[in-house]
Amino acid sequence: MSSSLNIGIAGLGTVGSGVVDLLANNTDHINKRTGKFLKLTAISAKDKSKKRNMNINNFDWFDNPCDLAASKDIDVFVELIGGSDGIAKESVEIALKSGKHVVTANKALIANHGFELSKIAESNSIMLNFEASVAGGIPIIKLLKESLAANKINKIYGILNGTCNFILTQMEKTGKPFDEVLIEAQKLGYAESDPSFDIDGTDTAHKLAVLTALMMGNPPDFSSIQVEGIESISSEDITYSEKLGFCIKLLGIVLKKGGKFIQRVHPCMIPVTSSISRIDDVKNAIFVEGNFIGPLVLEGLGAGAGPTASAVVSDLIDISNGNFIPPFGCKLESENHTEKLDTDRFGPWYIRLEVIDQPGVLAEIAAELKNQSVSIESVLQRGRAPGECVSLIITTHETNEKKFKIAMEKIKKLNALTEPPCMIRIENF
Amino acid sequence: MSSSLNIGIAGLGTVGSGVVDLLANNTDHINKRTGKFLKLTAISAKDKSKKRNMNINNFDWFDNPCDLAASKDIDVFVELIGGSDGIAKESVEIALKSGKHVVTANKALIANHGFELSKIAESNSIMLNFEASVAGGIPIIKLLKESLAANKINKIYGILNGTCNFILTQMEKTGKPFDEVLIEAQKLGYAESDPSFDIDGTDTAHKLAVLTALMMGNPPDFSSIQVEGIESISSEDITYSEKLGFCIKLLGIVLKKGGKFIQRVHPCMIPVTSSISRIDDVKNAIFVEGNFIGPLVLEGLGAGAGPTASAVVSDLIDISNGNFIPPFGCKLESENHTEKLDTDRFGPWYIRLEVIDQPGVLAEIAAELKNQSVSIESVLQRGRAPGECVSLIITTHETNEKKFKIAMEKIKKLNALTEPPCMIRIENF
Repeated sequence: MSSSLNIGIAGLGTVGSGVVDLLANNTDHINKRTGKFLKLTAISAKDKSKKRNMNINNFDWFDNPCDLAASKDIDVFVELIGGSDGIAKESVEIALKSGKHVVTANKALIANHGFELSKIAESNSIMLNFEASVAGGIPIIKLLKESLAANKINKIYGILNGTCNFILTQMEKTGKPFDEVLIEAQKLGYAESDPSFDIDGTDTAHKLAVLTALMMGNPPDFSSIQVEGIESISSEDITYSEKLGFCIKLLGIVLKKGGKFIQRVHPCMIPVTSSISRIDDVKNAIFVEGNFIGPLVLEGLGAGAGPTASAVVSDLIDISNGNFIPPFGCKLESENHTEKLDTDRFGPWYIRLEVIDQPGVLAEIAAELKNQSVSIESVLQRGRAPGECVSLIITTHETNEKKFKIAMEKIKKLNALTEPPCMIRIENF
Repeated sequence: MSSSLNIGIAGLGTVGSGVVDLLANNTDHINKRTGKFLKLTAISAKDKSKKRNMNINNFDWFDNPCDLAASKDIDVFVELIGGSDGIAKESVEIALKSGKHVVTANKALIANHGFELSKIAESNSIMLNFEASVAGGIPIIKLLKESLAANKINKIYGILNGTCNFILTQMEKTGKPFDEVLIEAQKLGYAESDPSFDIDGTDTAHKLAVLTALMMGNPPDFSSIQVEGIESISSEDITYSEKLGFCIKLLGIVLKKGGKFIQRVHPCMIPVTSSISRIDDVKNAIFVEGNFIGPLVLEGLGAGAGPTASAVVSDLIDISNGNFIPPFGCKLESENHTEKLDTDRFGPWYIRLEVIDQPGVLAEIAAELKNQSVSIESVLQRGRAPGECVSLIITTHETNEKKFKIAMEKIKKLNALTEPPCMIRIENF
């Protein structure tokens, strides 16, 4: 081995510290597997004086990540700052434009600006790697780009957010309500102090946009994703889903139909017998189906210092080995941008309605569903409390999404309803 | 793209036909992802006149694979003949020595001769890729070589043989005996007419040897693997394992302890709650644990034309993209060859004894176990039939393998036994 690959890291949070730790701990192991030695030479973070479990004096220090990105002394800029815009984007652009390889764990950046950034990388014949941006320790990016490159991928779905999965799993295991479990997740470090991007589905949608781009060879299209979060899932829904033989998971889903594709993020009821129904707590899982390989399921840790650092360093090893592949596996062509289908789902639903127990309620609801050709599969009304509120659980047969939503808009307006209905798609995954 | 990568395929069985089919069907998709066009130019198979679902007249024909391997008109030799020695090995050596890249699906070849073949490849700076040799559609080779390259791997275990898994799953689902299910597997094409290499564990051991080499950076060491097959598993064992909360799977296992490692292949009782207990029928699954990534589970189709062809073509795409990495991820050093531990397992066992129901039998058995410090966890004797044969099911606490086997040798000699004992290791995976 003739020389070293000089690495600058911007951001010393959980992931950044994990990368420093990994490079220090597994040095000999990694050096046997690289074309050039991986050498961490420079660091940028917010506060140089912060107490850390590492000696930062061994590295050049940059207060501004943009200065690090522009430094002539590094070969690779590792962006671990986060956020779709601002200093993260600016520094990555500086690095790419000055001919430096970039490794990033930033899903928001790639989901929103992956296309323009990949164009700069391609034109400068440098690498932009982002294995850590989706599902942490599950090496799904490289798998889609390289291992499954021979396959046309028809379908990807997955549990891509550990925070949501922890909350749903704990609600299932303990019967506790959403708010209480969220507080526990925050105490355990599984949820941010502001958990909105996790629980409203945004984080999952960022990751899904990246996976879809790899699957389709099209630019990431975050803005077209239908997104619903898990905020409205109640303990009652968890209980009823169990009775029906389902569990509730927040999934990111992309399906190809013909040359078109549709992306969506929403809670799903999936059969307890399915491969990914048992993925519990902070674990992630991804299902991929290709036209030759058939189905493939991957299950692992989607976040945390170790798994994410492993992904970042695998990207660095690829760079050191000169494994040059376009950032999304093929040259993305903006004009090739495939159309998205409208909300075309044709599938069954679970509905929970809180209604006043009075004569004729079920008849009114059934009539609205019938008017939109929505066929009821099962009805469950727990107990009876004339004049008081009861839960009415309905599952439907396969139904057109638009028609279903028209029916539900009508049902929402019925006087007998005491709160907005809870609607969850049933997926036969 | 300036030129093509000219490919010669030797062997037109299930996998070879699958590769031809894939290259023809996914041409545009693949060409977007390759540095050079993949161009199938030449074929070698046993019988040119055999009826096939493809037009072989488009390709140069070679009766002898060694002539194809030596041909100046190909860049890559794809060996899909099979067998650890003979014409498969000879032709691969010719190809490598004449500076051609080699792609093979041949686990027996790599398990037995992977070291010497990789040395030829390394010295000629060419590639020897064998993704299809282990677990068909699960891209475990590239994953270990590249995606997990930053990790020290501590443990790999997996269901690596679809035939055995089909047989065990069907025995569990139907209650039918081994022999009957084997015949069904043969009718369905899931088992060869001579299934010995599958059911006696040899096939699993070949694959395990390859995985261990990747994990340890040592030459494959097939001959040191402790191998037991599934021939002696009876319907009774399936029934009792269910009662105990286990299922039976044939696993390949490699564990690292300190700098040493141990490889073994044998049926295991694993908790029904474990991730890979639900892998049914011909599916394969692999569990990997790294020191940073934590646990990772992959599940997919381990055999068949499509998944295996996908793996072969992914190797070709890597070659076309110039992704040059040593065959086992790092340079194997024979002098570094790590010691194997002796049969050091310390774990629990399931024992089924067919005994004459007479006073003192259990006392004799218990005494032999006690003499070797084997502690009994549970005893189950179904029914009572004085003077006749009954099944006696014993599970033990964690115990030293050598001591356990000494006790069992003594027990085998007891007059009350009507057939050899069935012993299955319980693994808490």
